[in-house]
Amino acid sequence: MSAPEPDFFATIRWTPDGLVPAIVQDAETSEILMMAWMDREAILRTLATGQTHFYSRSRRKIWHKGETSGHLQHVESLWVDCDADVLLIKARQVGGACHEGYRSCFFRRVDREGRLEVAATPVFEAESVYRRGERE
Amino acid sequence: MSAPEPDFFATIRWTPDGLVPAIVQDAETSEILMMAWMDREAILRTLATGQTHFYSRSRRKIWHKGETSGHLQHVESLWVDCDADVLLIKARQVGGACHEGYRSCFFRRVDREGRLEVAATPVFEAESVYRRGERE
Repeated sequence: MSAPEPDFFATIRWTPDGLVPAIVQDAETSEILMMAWMDREAILRTLATGQTHFYSRSRRKIWHKGETSGHLQHVESLWVDCDADVLLIKARQVGGACHEGYRSCFFRRVDREGRLEVAATPVFEAESVYRRGERE
Repeated sequence: MSAPEPDFFATIRWTPDGLVPAIVQDAETSEILMMAWMDREAILRTLATGQTHFYSRSRRKIWHKGETSGHLQHVESLWVDCDADVLLIKARQVGGACHEGYRSCFFRRVDREGRLEVAATPVFEAESVYRRGERE
């Protein structure tokens, strides 16, 4: 992709690996859906398509959110924090953001005893959407 | 501090430096206020006091949000994402979260030309709250 780099790239404080964390917030409900990492290319593709793309640190490649599941994130706006080391994306989420079947990846709450409790209901069947071992 | 480690610490996928990123969301408005890093001690102090504490990677020490400014964050709930490598804190924010005087650190939006535009109004005078060069 040969799109010119947008001006704000010069402001971003990239990690040594050239990444920046991106929080995705539901543009309609304001629920926080997920956090993932982006490199320059992931941001360029996100801006070009209007759909979120991220960089997988484990697989070392770009992934298009929803490519397998259809659970796309349509970007409404992109924000940068005061230190320019975190992005915030407000997006319209199709289906659920979480590969475990939940609307948000933050479906577990720490209870009074310091244990994790599931505090949400799945919105889709993860097994029927993702193939075994597949993530996006 | 000698508080025993809560069970969920064993689930967290800490960075090699023993940190985990924490998103702070306004419990009342659902606005995303900031993202910062926590180590085990910062989480323990947060749980013990009910007020957010973080770990400053640049200063290599724990900081108590609002200690200087009075702009405390009173924790309502703590969440963990599916990969257990990001925390979400829902909190009641006193004043503003951002040291630049804004309610949220995400006060700049990327415009259509790829430039940053300020899209919020300050809620306090940063100069009168923070001493020169001071951050919290």
